[in-house]
Amino acid sequence: MNSIVCSVQITAAAPGLHDNTADIDRLQQALKTKLGDNRPLTVAYECMTIVAREFREAGFSGYALLNNLDTAWVVVGFTAKKPSVIAGMALDLGTTHLEATLLNLLDGEVLAEGNLENAQIAYGADILSRIHHATAKRRQQKKIPSDFQDPGLDELQQVIVATINELAGKLVVHAGLKTEDISALSVSGNTTMAHLFLGLDPFHICREPYIPLFNRSPVLNAKQLHLRFHPMAPVWLMPSVGSYFGGDLISGILASGMAQSSKTRMLIDVGTNAEVVLGNSDWLIACAGAAGPALEGGVARMGMRAGPGAIEYVAINPENYSMDIRTIGGVEPVGICGSGLIDLVAALYLARIIDIRGKFRDPATEKNPERAAFMKEHLHEHDDGFCFGVTGLSAKGTRNEVVLEQIDLDAMIRSKAAMYAILTTLINQVGLDFSDLEEITVAGAFGRHINPQHAMTLGMLPDLPLSVYRAIGNSSLRGAEKVLLDGTARDDCEKIVSSITYLELNVNQEFMISFSGARFIPHTDPSLFPSVPFFKGDEI
Amino acid sequence: MNSIVCSVQITAAAPGLHDNTADIDRLQQALKTKLGDNRPLTVAYECMTIVAREFREAGFSGYALLNNLDTAWVVVGFTAKKPSVIAGMALDLGTTHLEATLLNLLDGEVLAEGNLENAQIAYGADILSRIHHATAKRRQQKKIPSDFQDPGLDELQQVIVATINELAGKLVVHAGLKTEDISALSVSGNTTMAHLFLGLDPFHICREPYIPLFNRSPVLNAKQLHLRFHPMAPVWLMPSVGSYFGGDLISGILASGMAQSSKTRMLIDVGTNAEVVLGNSDWLIACAGAAGPALEGGVARMGMRAGPGAIEYVAINPENYSMDIRTIGGVEPVGICGSGLIDLVAALYLARIIDIRGKFRDPATEKNPERAAFMKEHLHEHDDGFCFGVTGLSAKGTRNEVVLEQIDLDAMIRSKAAMYAILTTLINQVGLDFSDLEEITVAGAFGRHINPQHAMTLGMLPDLPLSVYRAIGNSSLRGAEKVLLDGTARDDCEKIVSSITYLELNVNQEFMISFSGARFIPHTDPSLFPSVPFFKGDEI
Repeated sequence: MNSIVCSVQITAAAPGLHDNTADIDRLQQALKTKLGDNRPLTVAYECMTIVAREFREAGFSGYALLNNLDTAWVVVGFTAKKPSVIAGMALDLGTTHLEATLLNLLDGEVLAEGNLENAQIAYGADILSRIHHATAKRRQQKKIPSDFQDPGLDELQQVIVATINELAGKLVVHAGLKTEDISALSVSGNTTMAHLFLGLDPFHICREPYIPLFNRSPVLNAKQLHLRFHPMAPVWLMPSVGSYFGGDLISGILASGMAQSSKTRMLIDVGTNAEVVLGNSDWLIACAGAAGPALEGGVARMGMRAGPGAIEYVAINPENYSMDIRTIGGVEPVGICGSGLIDLVAALYLARIIDIRGKFRDPATEKNPERAAFMKEHLHEHDDGFCFGVTGLSAKGTRNEVVLEQIDLDAMIRSKAAMYAILTTLINQVGLDFSDLEEITVAGAFGRHINPQHAMTLGMLPDLPLSVYRAIGNSSLRGAEKVLLDGTARDDCEKIVSSITYLELNVNQEFMISFSGARFIPHTDPSLFPSVPFFKGDEI
Repeated sequence: MNSIVCSVQITAAAPGLHDNTADIDRLQQALKTKLGDNRPLTVAYECMTIVAREFREAGFSGYALLNNLDTAWVVVGFTAKKPSVIAGMALDLGTTHLEATLLNLLDGEVLAEGNLENAQIAYGADILSRIHHATAKRRQQKKIPSDFQDPGLDELQQVIVATINELAGKLVVHAGLKTEDISALSVSGNTTMAHLFLGLDPFHICREPYIPLFNRSPVLNAKQLHLRFHPMAPVWLMPSVGSYFGGDLISGILASGMAQSSKTRMLIDVGTNAEVVLGNSDWLIACAGAAGPALEGGVARMGMRAGPGAIEYVAINPENYSMDIRTIGGVEPVGICGSGLIDLVAALYLARIIDIRGKFRDPATEKNPERAAFMKEHLHEHDDGFCFGVTGLSAKGTRNEVVLEQIDLDAMIRSKAAMYAILTTLINQVGLDFSDLEEITVAGAFGRHINPQHAMTLGMLPDLPLSVYRAIGNSSLRGAEKVLLDGTARDDCEKIVSSITYLELNVNQEFMISFSGARFIPHTDPSLFPSVPFFKGDEI
């Protein structure tokens, strides 16, 4: 009875000449008695006729469907029979992908899962170009609101709503339902996606001092957003903390459980940005930085998102220089994803194919004959320096060749340095040490596929026992599921938002210093990474 | 600051890199501090972009426009300059006429007044025929609400909304505003009109046991009802008590002040029904009955509503039988309104032209020569008995002749008997006597024009000092004005509804007995009317 939409059984006396209470009042009185709750209780205006008719036809006894909102109960339906399903959709509203779960709110059962590309990509691949599209034709402000605001913004809102409707359509087919049966929607997304979804002006998000229009949305309904769900389905949007710290991460914090733990934990979520949170049930400190692209497969020329054909695992035996690679789906390699890239660069370092600066060593000066042979097989020199053929040193351009160039390596080093600098800045901020952490939760596709050992080898993640690391998958979606089912979780989101201190890295000196120190493998200070081999002669 | 829409001045700090609070959050925080109130505060979703832009352009300082709702504050606008007008429309939504006032909510000033015929009349003159039209094509119930419900009901809703828009258009022109400037609407109407206005199924209102779909409406907004006001203008509908006891009377009780008085008062409102309330700040008892038509000019063949050409005053000098009549507007008489009818019948009784049963006496048997002459001049015999030519005994059918027939007199006697029986039943119900009343408030056009002395002569109203009676005009509209301006008045409505005991007269034996006794002038028990002459020889 704590889900965002509840079914409540009631039995009311039938009306008579000496009991002429109105139908809706009769229903409300019975429900108030049953709920024993101080929140105001209304019947949604749009549902009044339908609810009253169903209530009468059911002989004034049956099951009311109620939106269980923070500040009110709202009746949105009535049935004579006990409902077996109340469908709710949890949505991770990503910049590039939407991922959703359809849940039965009565028992938490997963009815369907699915994902879809964000059709807004046609208007710009990244947040900045979308904001530009949304705000390029900003109108003169009007005094009176209308459905129409800014043409570009309206367009992006319509596109995302259409995408959500399409994804919902896929899910309900799988569950044997109709989209109008979806009684609730929870959405977690970054701050810009939240603005575009609600059609609210994102103009200032990307302009100093980076102020969003809103962080907390009132609970809207599907009709207001033109979603083809039950018109009164509550749309619960995860609150944000700021322009670069959105509801997706609040959702992740919720899913990680760190805000409910008395011991200090860290949450790392790598998407387009690296977003990191440190804290416990008493306090939370967070920051975000651009450490992501390389780790999402967005830096290397052959980089790709985790998908079929992506190299997700690479190992080089430092004894005999045999190489082992695995692709997602076990098919022919077509590129390399973030986790594969981390594996590869860590392996190249351990095999001493690259040096601590992340530069390819010259095969010509190599003294170890086996290593020299391996380097000759894989390293290829061209105008820009060396490049490494992961799948063999065939002529460039061969269909299945996956190549790592020096420029890719440099980007990778910058990304891993940024990541470690973020973590260092954050832990220093509160006067703790990495060893004080009970857990480091790694979220996202990155968290699901990454081998923390290899990330430690690179000096991207702190050198800690492997048991400290825990992957939780799409934490944004997990949090969205949680709020559908659990009122305490909905309250917790507000607590999380209120207790977060946001650390702005763009103006942080310590971050810049940490970043410089971290631009080596594993670090300029090898004592920070006792478990990582440090090769004599490679000192700076 | 207690009006239903308020203007609240705030000044917030400008955002910066170290204060990245979102625009809407910044506004909300400043308002919460200023309001110092526990109610939730939100910015209406539809207004978010406009409000945020105005807030920024005003340099984060200015005047927020807030809907001051029972359970929440909702921001709907922002201006840099202090507003000089917040326009609110109070509406008496009558079955035949709409009457409205446009008020400045900042100071209560009346900006404009107006009225319009209810265009629903084209679909039926009375409530019953409208309910029939609304429900004749009731659809199979749907599980999911949509804008479309029942075609007949939709039609009537569209018509009344159009009428309100038209009336609002008239008012704003007079006030130099636009309809979108109307920031709030309060509506009081009978229960059926409330259902038709909201498009809610009135089917059971006129079917035993006469149960309305709703008595209390949540506060809606203009957009939900397709009113061309500010889309977020709150629409505050007076709550009802039952099918035959609507928000118009609750509004009247509020306007009369009886529910705030420690001494017991009575309120009489005569429209299509006579609605009567008895009580004080501790308790209220109410009933309604069909005593109205004759008193609204709806019974006599020449009856008409109070309007130009309606005879509103009649006197017959019992000494010389000279007759004095006055019409509204001082023009040629074209009919007779309720107050004129009461004057006329009382005068006919005092001049002994009619007997205590309300029957015309036979001029042929009249012994007083002056009276006989007067009777000859005015009384005309035809197949149905005598009729009385108010404006002279010309040939029937003359344009300006206003005639009272025996059948009209009979209806008048039934109406006055019903009225007195209602009042008697009610006062007996609580064990009081009419002389215990501090005040009898008479509302409506009836109350404005009636001469209580003449109504007492007829035995329609109890025989009490004239100072006990007070006319308050359109009390339904006055109450609607009050709730726009005063939050306490809005709370009081709910208290009034909760404290009212409704007495059903249709099944009341005492009422039937009282009714029989009251079918004489002034009554079968003349001791109840000591101030009214009782003529010997007229005893039953």
